[in-house]
This record gives sequence, C-alpha cells and structure tokens, in this order.
Amino acid sequence: MKGCRRKTAPVLTLTTDFGQRDGYVAMMKGVILSICPSAEIVDITHDIDPQDVREAAFRFHSAFRFFPTGTVHVVVVDPGVGTARAAIAMKTGAYVFVFPDNGILSLVVEQEKPSQVVKLDNPLYFMDAVTTTFHGRDIFAPVAAYLADGVPIERLGTPLRPDKLVCLKTDRPQLSELLNGRGRQLTGRIASIDRFGNLVTNIDQTALVDLLDGSGMLANMVVSVHTAGGTTVLHGIANTYGAVSEKEPLALPGSSGYLEIAVNCGNAAHFFQAEKGDRISVQQAEEKVN
Amino acid sequence: MKGCRRKTAPVLTLTTDFGQRDGYVAMMKGVILSICPSAEIVDITHDIDPQDVREAAFRFHSAFRFFPTGTVHVVVVDPGVGTARAAIAMKTGAYVFVFPDNGILSLVVEQEKPSQVVKLDNPLYFMDAVTTTFHGRDIFAPVAAYLADGVPIERLGTPLRPDKLVCLKTDRPQLSELLNGRGRQLTGRIASIDRFGNLVTNIDQTALVDLLDGSGMLANMVVSVHTAGGTTVLHGIANTYGAVSEKEPLALPGSSGYLEIAVNCGNAAHFFQAEKGDRISVQQAEEKVN
Amino acid sequence: MKGCRRKTAPVLTLTTDFGQRDGYVAMMKGVILSICPSAEIVDITHDIDPQDVREAAFRFHSAFRFFPTGTVHVVVVDPGVGTARAAIAMKTGAYVFVFPDNGILSLVVEQEKPSQVVKLDNPLYFMDAVTTTFHGRDIFAPVAAYLADGVPIERLGTPLRPDKLVCLKTDRPQLSELLNGRGRQLTGRIASIDRFGNLVTNIDQTALVDLLDGSGMLANMVVSVHTAGGTTVLHGIANTYGAVSEKEPLALPGSSGYLEIAVNCGNAAHFFQAEKGDRISVQQAEEKVN
Repeated sequence: MKGCRRKTAPVLTLTTDFGQRDGYVAMMKGVILSICPSAEIVDITHDIDPQDVREAAFRFHSAFRFFPTGTVHVVVVDPGVGTARAAIAMKTGAYVFVFPDNGILSLVVEQEKPSQVVKLDNPLYFMDAVTTTFHGRDIFAPVAAYLADGVPIERLGTPLRPDKLVCLKTDRPQLSELLNGRGRQLTGRIASIDRFGNLVTNIDQTALVDLLDGSGMLANMVVSVHTAGGTTVLHGIANTYGAVSEKEPLALPGSSGYLEIAVNCGNAAHFFQAEKGDRISVQQAEEKVN
Repeated sequence: MKGCRRKTAPVLTLTTDFGQRDGYVAMMKGVILSICPSAEIVDITHDIDPQDVREAAFRFHSAFRFFPTGTVHVVVVDPGVGTARAAIAMKTGAYVFVFPDNGILSLVVEQEKPSQVVKLDNPLYFMDAVTTTFHGRDIFAPVAAYLADGVPIERLGTPLRPDKLVCLKTDRPQLSELLNGRGRQLTGRIASIDRFGNLVTNIDQTALVDLLDGSGMLANMVVSVHTAGGTTVLHGIANTYGAVSEKEPLALPGSSGYLEIAVNCGNAAHFFQAEKGDRISVQQAEEKVN
Repeated sequence: MKGCRRKTAPVLTLTTDFGQRDGYVAMMKGVILSICPSAEIVDITHDIDPQDVREAAFRFHSAFRFFPTGTVHVVVVDPGVGTARAAIAMKTGAYVFVFPDNGILSLVVEQEKPSQVVKLDNPLYFMDAVTTTFHGRDIFAPVAAYLADGVPIERLGTPLRPDKLVCLKTDRPQLSELLNGRGRQLTGRIASIDRFGNLVTNIDQTALVDLLDGSGMLANMVVSVHTAGGTTVLHGIANTYGAVSEKEPLALPGSSGYLEIAVNCGNAAHFFQAEKGDRISVQQAEEKVN
C-alpha cells in the first residue's frame, strides 16, 4: 500500500537548447511551479546544439513516447523568437505539446494524430511582461503550466488546422535501385552522435523492412559508413555490441529504433572521424561475403 | 479539478559551483529529502565557475524572483568554507535564503528587504558530523530542509542585523560626463556570457533610463564593445534578434533586464573575442548616424 | 504544520554513464513515472566516464548513504549489456539497489549487509520490448519503479546467494614495512578527480588509523604525490583548505571520508599534472621536518 498510485501530479517535460548553466531552464521551472505547484518536471535534454531545430526534432521524437499519458511536453528550440512565427499548443490522444511553429514536432505529427491545435494568442496565460527574446519563460512555460493545471486548450488561443503547422522537410532515408540489377540501396545520414560516440542514423526499422522487401536477412546486409575517415564497409547488422571483439566496429539496431554504428567498448565517432550529417548506406550483400 | 492546487510541497532551489558530475549536489539532495521528504528541489545552476562569488551573485539574482512565494533558496559558492566566515539564513517578504556570508546575496539584499537574519550557529540543525570542507551538505542543506519543513528561522541561530552582512562591492555601471559637452556616457562590463555566446552586461534598465534622463530614445543610443577583438560600435538598441541580418551583431535588452550584446543566429563571444569583465559603454548619438 | 511529513513518495536515485544530453536518462524517468507516478527521482550523476565501472562504484559509494531509508538506488554502468551478465536487485536494511552484476556495488556490499538478492529474470516487470543495448530503460528502470511502488523483491526474479555476486577487486590502499625499520607506508591511488581539481584518493580513515597504529598524529604524516609533474612531498594532513596560503597544495581528509590532495583556491589536478590512478603514499615523519 505504498503511495505511488495516489499521486495525480501532472508530468511536464522540457526539451531546449538553453543548457543548464545559465539559469534559463530554472526560470522556466520557477514560472511553472508558481502556476502549477504539483507539476512533476522532467528534463529531456537542454543540450541541443544552439538553434538546431532538426536535432531537437530527432532527439525529442526518440524520447517522448516513454512518458505517461497526460504528460505536457514543452519543446523550445526557437531561432525565430520575437519574429512572426506562431506559438502552438497541440493535443493528441496521449499528450499535449507546447512549441514554436518551426517544424520542431514534424516527426511527432507524422506519428501521433493531433486532435486539437491552437495558436497561442491569449496573453491572459502568458507572463505579465513578455520579452522578445525568451518566450520559453514568458509564453511556453506558463501556457504549459496552465495546461498541466487543467485549463482547456481552447482557452489558450485560436484554433488552427493541423495541416497548417510548419512542416520540417524530414530527412528520410532514400531507397534507390542500383545499376545492373545489383539490387537496391538505402541511403541515410547520421542524425545524431551520442555521448558514447555511437552514430545514430535516420534509418528506421520501417526503411530496413522496405529494403528487405520480404526476402533477405539483417545478417546479410552490408552497411557502408562514409566519413572524413574514408569509407568503411560493415558486413551484417548485429544484435548486440558483444557480437564483435572489443574496439571493433559494428552496425546494430539502436535502442530508439534507428540503425546505429558503434564500436564495442569504444567510440565510433572517433573511430570513423564521423560527423552529424555524414552518409550511411545499406544494401543487401550481392553474394555471401566471408 | 486536476491535482495542481492541492499540493503544498515547499520549493527549494540550489545554486552552487559543485557541478553535477561528482555527486556532491546529490548528497545535498539526499540530506534535504531525509529531513523534508516533500521538498520540491529545483537546480538553478551548479556550473558557476569554481569559487566565483561575483558570477554566482549575478546569475542567482537573475533567476530567483521567478520562483513561488515561500521558496527556500540555497546559494553556496563558498571559497571560505572551514574558515571563520558565518553561515546565514535570511527571510524577506517572499523568500528564505541560506548562504555563506561572503556577499553572494548582495544584489538580492539591495532589492528584497530582509525581515529577519540569523547567523547559523545551532548545531542541532546541522548534520551530526560537520566536515570542514563541505558545509553545503553538512550545514546549508539540512538548515534549508528544516526551514522548508516549517522550523522557525529564529531557532536556527543568533539574530544578526541585516546591515552586518558582508557586502560585495557590486560592479555597477558608471555614468560620466564626456568632454566638450558631448553628453554623458555609461560604462559597464560583461557580467556573464551565456551558452549562446550572448554577452550579458551589468547595465540594467535603470541605468539606461538615467542615461536618457528624460530625453532621447533607445534607438539612438550608441553601444561600444571593447574586447580583445578591438572596439566595435553598434548603432541603436534593438528589440529582437531579427532586427539585424543573420550573423550580424546587435545590442538589445536581455530577458533578465540587462543590456545584452548578441549576434543574430550566431555567437557574440566568438564574434567579438569577448571575455567576462570586458568593457561596454553606451552614449547618446551626437547626431543621427546613418 | 507544513506538508513535509505527510508525503510518502518513494525516492529513487539514478547513477549512470549516459550523460544528460542524449535523452537516455529522460527515457528512464518516463518509464519510471509511468509505473510509479509518485516517485521522487534524484540524479546522483550521469557523467561517469563511459563504461568505467570502477569509477561508478567509487562515486556511488560516496553518495548513497545520504539518502533516506527506503530509497531505491539504480546504478547502471553496463559495458556487458546484451551479454550473459545478470541483472540484480538487492535489499539491505536501509535500501534497495538495482544494477548489472559486474561488481559496480562491491564497495557497498562490503559495508551494507544484503538481506535479499534476486537475479532479475521475470519479464513481467520489464518493458514489453527489451532491446539488447539499453537495459537501463528496458529492465532496470521498470524494475526499480515496481520496487518503489511496493512490489516485493522476490516476485522480480530468482533468489541468489549474496556471495555469488560478481566482486570487483577493490583497489584498497596497501600497508607495507619500509626498509631499515623506518616505519610503515600506506600506498594508495587517485580514485577520482572532482570538478575543482581535488584529487580524491582511495585512502580512507580506517587505513590511516591502521597506519598510525595507536601512535602518531595526522599532523606528523608525510604525504607523497607521484604524478606526471614529479613527486611532491606534503608535510602533515591539514583540517581545512585555509591551513595553507592561496594557491598552495595540501593534504586533508575529504568530505567523503577519503584523503584528498587539494590546492587552496586552486586546482590540484593542474598543479600536479595529476591523473586518475596516480600513486599517493603516506608515512609517518621519521623525525620532525621543519
């Protein structure tokens, strides 16, 4: 009979490029707790490269679905702050999202059907003084706190048709035919490099299944890594780091559902001299190699 | 009827130079939750440059007022730990503050009138074993937790007159007359550089208003940035980053109430080769430039 | 009559090498709050050097005992993820621990007597889909959340005898006789270097007391620091940083119970060009030096 199931505190997550050292995130938390004292605030990350909306979209998309139904997700990477770009609140079956209308939720919108979208234009729910440079604190934080506190989304602004949201051209892997009937190839990119130096690509399970097209096995795939360090060919997609010796590279399905390039007990970014954006291609082995 | 308004958990903030990697902050949180399990602990920052009391004073001052009434603020940058410097708890109308008596709250004391100040000398409210090197954990954390838990401040130590607190000579911008009746000039400094490379000066709204002295407009100000990169003159104080082209510099009122120098979608610290402490001056344009 | 004592929220700590920038820790928190919404989650550190089980063991051991009785501690530095290494839950008088069986809790097990240990093999308490690369999210987080929520430990897996746990050969300081009856010497290592550049050794109070053997005083000890910068001899173990002038080095008992080498208002790691693993020796002064 522990207390766990009693609490109804709403969960509120924060994803920004503000870092943790300057106190900006803390100001947002102070604003939130002033409006909704019971909010349980969780940091997803604040270390998005400054103004990198694409990276924020990718990282947030990897993490958001692990949170409980009813979570209010605040996502603010906002190079257009102070300009005419709209501020948005969006409801789906499971979550509420608050974000600048710059495409940062494009990957989410492809997956979670929005049931309600509003353009945040009711200053009743903003801070009294809204600066031109910090809407994270002055608009997004208070709006999210009111949503967490039960204020209906329609009070916060003007309805917007979901298809009117700014859409980031998502960087999907491309499937192409190779010359001379040598089969098909999937070309993707390194979408993000994590703390361990793992290269997280934008090649998801669906794209790999399309490539396989009902025949072939992951173990027979050939993965090519094109970086400043040259082109390296990896034979097969493994299941676990331990499939290769220590300090050896491998390709494997990452924990977020995307193909990853790693080095067992090592750092793939250093090993390959890899950078975000570098090209990764996958094809079926022409004939069994090795 | 969400749960938000029901919770009465006291908010407790932490500002230190301990970083997050060594577990020191976690020890403070463990101590706090052992004494006051319902405390809602928020990190303001732990990335103050080691022992930089002045920077801590500035950053904390920018953030503390966004927290709810009743918040207990713990501020520990403490180069004098283990020496004779006093440990203090201070109450104002809205908040309680716990800190070493080294001037770290000078900016706050100028603004929030202290109603009660005590020198923390009652070991009943300390950890059983107080080390000479970590009063953050052994004195400030438990005292703050007891305060959050409702222990009256007068039980924690001996009353102290507020004017007896150590006062940091605050680095206020200086107003001076220019030669030959060319008007007046405000000279300030870069107080802090944030993650985006924005140069946050110590020139606040009040100082700018004093400079204007009832006549003139922000748009007619001339801001000079004196750094290792030379002297750069910026014409006008803008309202938003978008007032200039991408990668162009500008001066604008920052979100914390201080004049900032920024580069639109860029990094002003790199652009100007700027460092904390570099000089910034503001004067009225002699005649309309451009 | 504040609310503090009313709350029964279980505290859950996280210690990992995942960093905070990639969202991995946030995924664990989302999983935990989905299962046990009232959990109070505290980060001990996420900045353990990747795969450094020994450092994690040391840092966690310094911090865990400051948390309230009943805390569930999750410790995941897990180079063997996806291999045959077991996943463990362990109960002691005060705490519950969840961790991979790679010796990461060796220092804790020497100190806290385990009353119950189980090998986590009941997938009912795992995430539905368990990846091969992220058991922190898919196994350790949900198991910890169920434990925090009151699920009895025996439901989570198969009992294991505590002496069957993998034991890290802990790097204890060695006591040895010097030649020619010149007394005894304690040889230890730098176990960790903190944000301030303090060198935290593995030489604890007990080892120093053994060296003293009932006679002698800390003030008469001679501490030798052997690093890339050469060998430096420090006379006496001080009580506080202020015992030496600014920028001067000293040895003193650190706040975690281990001997530390520091520089007053400076950075000992830079001063000595020190690295983790460097040798530190302590002996009694042959005759009073200075």
